[in-house]
Amino acid sequence: MTQSLNSAQLGCWRAYIESSQRLFNKLEDELRATSELSLADYQVLVLLSETPGQRLRMGELAGQLVFSPSRLTYQISNMEKRGLVTRQPCPDDRRGSEAVLTAAGLLTLREAAPQHAASVRQHLMDDLSETELAVLTRVFDRLGERLAPGRPSSDATTNIS
Amino acid sequence: MTQSLNSAQLGCWRAYIESSQRLFNKLEDELRATSELSLADYQVLVLLSETPGQRLRMGELAGQLVFSPSRLTYQISNMEKRGLVTRQPCPDDRRGSEAVLTAAGLLTLREAAPQHAASVRQHLMDDLSETELAVLTRVFDRLGERLAPGRPSSDATTNIS
Repeated sequence: MTQSLNSAQLGCWRAYIESSQRLFNKLEDELRATSELSLADYQVLVLLSETPGQRLRMGELAGQLVFSPSRLTYQISNMEKRGLVTRQPCPDDRRGSEAVLTAAGLLTLREAAPQHAASVRQHLMDDLSETELAVLTRVFDRLGERLAPGRPSSDATTNIS
Repeated sequence: MTQSLNSAQLGCWRAYIESSQRLFNKLEDELRATSELSLADYQVLVLLSETPGQRLRMGELAGQLVFSPSRLTYQISNMEKRGLVTRQPCPDDRRGSEAVLTAAGLLTLREAAPQHAASVRQHLMDDLSETELAVLTRVFDRLGERLAPGRPSSDATTNIS
């Protein structure tokens, strides 16, 4: 049906997925040790903090995080219990709801950010040359574009290969 | 306490973490749709299939996956119920136990592999130039080395920065 990866692609893929997952687990451990936030909590707080009004519709947030609706509902309910966000009806669509950053959520994010940034530098960024930094940015910008929420899925082409 | 990321590092980091998480979620969706395996299941099956005797001590497996002992116990119990692995006492240490790949686990992995490889190619690998492939391999090989299980943690140096 499909050709498998060649050996260079397989080596690259294994290095990327295994070390990325190690890195994300490590960052999560370090984040939880100093802030009681998970990486998913942290990302939700960052996304909300950068949005006008510090609020996002649940559907948009699910799209940004590539979470299923049920996973996002669980994530936001959990953060709501801890006072980091609230849920409110959308002003323009009463059937929809928005996640809204609380002041406590913003403070928690600001307190967690310096140590999290230090972890990111220590484990990854300080090791990269300028060229490597540029290549990674370019590759992952393109990947993000291709997998962006709202972009038509390319699944229809899968069976052609 | 620590310097935050500069703007090039921050751009790189955001592109990398956001698109990687989108990619991993997408791959997991596609894997579950065709095989009922999660990405974590798939990785456990790959690791066991590549080991002599198709078995690994629980501690080694936890180290490879950077899973906490409790998360690994949950993961392996779940796979055991589905017949993909069994748990057996270690031959040389009766207090320890090993996860052992079953024939059903190996067949499930072999059936899932072509479509998973096609997903990896479609979403990431076919887009990379040779140079980009080489840079990613180099960067993530180094990262994997630094975060390898059994390697002394560099946490002791964190407070110096």
